[in-house]
Amino acid sequence: MSTVKLIDENCDHPIVRAVFDDIKATKKIDRVPNIWRALATNPEHLQLCWSRLKAIMRPGKIDLLTKEIIALAVSVTNSCRYCINSHTAAVQKLGLDNEALGEVLAVVGLYNQMNKLSDAYQVEPDILPKVS
Amino acid sequence: MSTVKLIDENCDHPIVRAVFDDIKATKKIDRVPNIWRALATNPEHLQLCWSRLKAIMRPGKIDLLTKEIIALAVSVTNSCRYCINSHTAAVQKLGLDNEALGEVLAVVGLYNQMNKLSDAYQVEPDILPKVS
Amino acid sequence: MSTVKLIDENCDHPIVRAVFDDIKATKKIDRVPNIWRALATNPEHLQLCWSRLKAIMRPGKIDLLTKEIIALAVSVTNSCRYCINSHTAAVQKLGLDNEALGEVLAVVGLYNQMNKLSDAYQVEPDILPKVS
Amino acid sequence: MSTVKLIDENCDHPIVRAVFDDIKATKKIDRVPNIWRALATNPEHLQLCWSRLKAIMRPGKIDLLTKEIIALAVSVTNSCRYCINSHTAAVQKLGLDNEALGEVLAVVGLYNQMNKLSDAYQVEPDILPKVS
Amino acid sequence: MSTVKLIDENCDHPIVRAVFDDIKATKKIDRVPNIWRALATNPEHLQLCWSRLKAIMRPGKIDLLTKEIIALAVSVTNSCRYCINSHTAAVQKLGLDNEALGEVLAVVGLYNQMNKLSDAYQVEPDILPKVS
Amino acid sequence: MSTVKLIDENCDHPIVRAVFDDIKATKKIDRVPNIWRALATNPEHLQLCWSRLKAIMRPGKIDLLTKEIIALAVSVTNSCRYCINSHTAAVQKLGLDNEALGEVLAVVGLYNQMNKLSDAYQVEPDILPKVS
Repeated sequence: MSTVKLIDENCDHPIVRAVFDDIKATKKIDRVPNIWRALATNPEHLQLCWSRLKAIMRPGKIDLLTKEIIALAVSVTNSCRYCINSHTAAVQKLGLDNEALGEVLAVVGLYNQMNKLSDAYQVEPDILPKVS
Repeated sequence: MSTVKLIDENCDHPIVRAVFDDIKATKKIDRVPNIWRALATNPEHLQLCWSRLKAIMRPGKIDLLTKEIIALAVSVTNSCRYCINSHTAAVQKLGLDNEALGEVLAVVGLYNQMNKLSDAYQVEPDILPKVS
Repeated sequence: MSTVKLIDENCDHPIVRAVFDDIKATKKIDRVPNIWRALATNPEHLQLCWSRLKAIMRPGKIDLLTKEIIALAVSVTNSCRYCINSHTAAVQKLGLDNEALGEVLAVVGLYNQMNKLSDAYQVEPDILPKVS
Repeated sequence: MSTVKLIDENCDHPIVRAVFDDIKATKKIDRVPNIWRALATNPEHLQLCWSRLKAIMRPGKIDLLTKEIIALAVSVTNSCRYCINSHTAAVQKLGLDNEALGEVLAVVGLYNQMNKLSDAYQVEPDILPKVS
Repeated sequence: MSTVKLIDENCDHPIVRAVFDDIKATKKIDRVPNIWRALATNPEHLQLCWSRLKAIMRPGKIDLLTKEIIALAVSVTNSCRYCINSHTAAVQKLGLDNEALGEVLAVVGLYNQMNKLSDAYQVEPDILPKVS
Repeated sequence: MSTVKLIDENCDHPIVRAVFDDIKATKKIDRVPNIWRALATNPEHLQLCWSRLKAIMRPGKIDLLTKEIIALAVSVTNSCRYCINSHTAAVQKLGLDNEALGEVLAVVGLYNQMNKLSDAYQVEPDILPKVS
C-alpha cells in the first residue's frame, strides 16, 4: 500500500490538473498511472519530474524502444518492482516478444555478474585507444 | 591495484591459453583485457564466464550496439569503474558519439531517480492490459 | 511472510524480555515492532542491534527529525520496504506533512540521479579548499 | 580519468555558456565543477539537470543544510566517490564539524545495517496508525 | 505476479524438457522452481543459466553449505525477495538452525554498515603484506 | 584521499586510545587500520562500531573463515574498495588460496546474476516445506 494517499485523478489543483491532462494526452492513456498520483502530493515536484521525463523519453539520437530497454535494465538492476512491471509492459507494447525480452535480460544478468567480478578483483581499467 | 596477480598473457595452462586465444580472435584485439587475466587464477571459472559471455554478446533478436548500451546502463547503475570504462569504449567504437552517449545516460539517470521515487511512495503496480 | 517465526512478545528469555521492555518504554509504544521479534531468534544479536540503535537515535549534535529523515533517505536508496514504511511513519509523527515529505524525496530522487551521472562520466573530484 | 573530454569552462555554446554562468553565480564559485563540464557534452541534458537541481536545492519547507545532509546520505549509500567528496565539503562549509559529521554517518551506517536485516528476515510492515 | 507466463512443467520443448528433468534430478525435488519456469521463455538462456549454476554449486574447495551461505549473503545485500526465501530454505535444509542463521545475518548486517562507513570517509586501503 | 584527517595512532583521547589498543591486541597487528582512524573523529561512534564488530567477528556457531568469506561476499556485492582489499587479505591470511578465492567469487558472481533475473521476472517465492 502506498505511504501517501494517492491524489484523485480529477483533482482540481491547477498544476496537478495540467500535468495529469498532459500525461494522458502524451501517453495516449485513459488513466493516470499511480506514480504520478503519488508525486502529486507535492505539485511542484510532480511538474519537475514530468517535464523532465517528457523531454528525455522522446525519440532523439536514440529510438524509443532502446530507451525503454535502458529503463528496464536500470529498473531490474535497482530491483524496483513498480518500474519493472511498468517498463516490461512498455517494451512488450513496443513489440518485444518474450524471447527477445529474455535476450535483453540475459545481458542484464550477465553484466550484473561481470560488474561484481571486476570489482571483486579490483581490476584496473585497460588502456584503450580513445575515441575523440 | 588488483587483489590477485594477473595471469600472464602467455600462460601455458591449456584452458587459459585456449580462452585467451579465443578472446583475442573473437574480439579482434591484440591484448587480453585485465578482467580475463584476473579470472584466469581459476581456469574453470574463466572458461565458464567466457563461454557464457560469448554466447550472449552476439547479435540475435537484439543487435550488438543495443546490447552494449544495456551493459553500460547496468554498469553505471552498479557504479562499476572497470566496466563503465570498458563499455563506454565499446559503444563509442560501435559509433555512438558523445551527444548520443549523453542521451543514453540521461535515460539511465532519469530512471535511477524514478525507481527510487516509486519505491519511496511504495506505489502498487498499475493494472495494465497484459500482452500475451 | 517472514523467513523465521517471530518471537512472541511475551517471551520469557531474560535478554529478549529486557530488550522488548526497553523498546516499548523508550519508544513509548504498546507493541514490539516486527523487526525486533525476528531479531530475537538470536538474543545476543538482538541486544547488540538494540543497544546501538538506542545510542545513535537520540538527539545529539543532530536533532531527531533530521536523523529520521536520514534514515528514510537511506531506506529509500536501499529500497527497503519495511524500513520505508517505518521511517515514513516516524517523520510524519514528528510533524513532517506530505508536501515537506515530497521535498525530502525530491532531494533523494535528485541525488540518486546525479550520483549515477557522476559515476557514468567517471568524474574526478573537484579540488576544493578543505575545511580543517 | 573522465570518460569524455570535459567541456572548456569558456565554451561559447549559448546553452552551455548560460548554464555555466548561472552555476557560478548561484553557487558563488569561480570555477565550474567537473560534473557540469562532463554533462555539457550534451547541452540539452546539462540544462535539464541544472534547472532541476537549482529548483530543488533551495531552502523550502526543508532547510539547505538538511538537504545537503540528505544528499550526503544518498551518496554514501550509493558509494559515489565524486558526490561523497562534494557533499562532505558542502556540509562542512555550512557549519557541520567532524563530530557532527560522525553523527550523521553513524545514522547512515546504522540503517544500511538495519535495512538489510529487515530484508533478510522478510519482515512485514507493522500496522501503524496512519497520519492523514 | 510474474511478468511473463511461467512455462508449464510438462512443456515438450526439447531443451526446456532436458533442463527441467536435470533440475529435478540434480536437486532431488518433484517440482521445477518458479525462476526456471520463467527463464524457460527463452530456452537458450535457460540452458546457459542452469549449466553454469550446476557447475558452480557443487562441492569443490568450498563446501556446499558455505556456498549457500554466500548465496544468502549476496541475496540479502541485493534485497532479492525470491532468492532470500530460496537460500534461507536451503541453508536450513543443510542444517543451519535459527541461532546460527542469526549469526550469519549479524555478519551480513555488520558489513553492510562498515562498507558504507569506509566509503563515507573515502578511506584508502591499508598497505598490507601481500600473500603471494 | 580520506574526507577527514585521520586521527593519529598515538592520540591520547582516552576512548580512542583504549579502542586503538584493543584493536591492535585483538587483531595482533602493529598498526591501526585506516578505517578506525577515520571513525575516531567521533570517539563514541568509534567505540560503538568496534565493540559490535568484536562481538560479532569471533568464532561461534559459524567459524571465522566463513565469517570473513561472508564479509567479502557482502563487500563485493556493495563494491566497497577498502573492504574488498581488507577482506581479501583476511581470507588469504586464513588460508584460502587463489583458486578457492575464485570459487568463492564464482558463487558471488552467479547470485548477483540470478538475483537480478529473479527480480526481472518478478518471480513469486516457491512454496517450500518450512523447517521449524
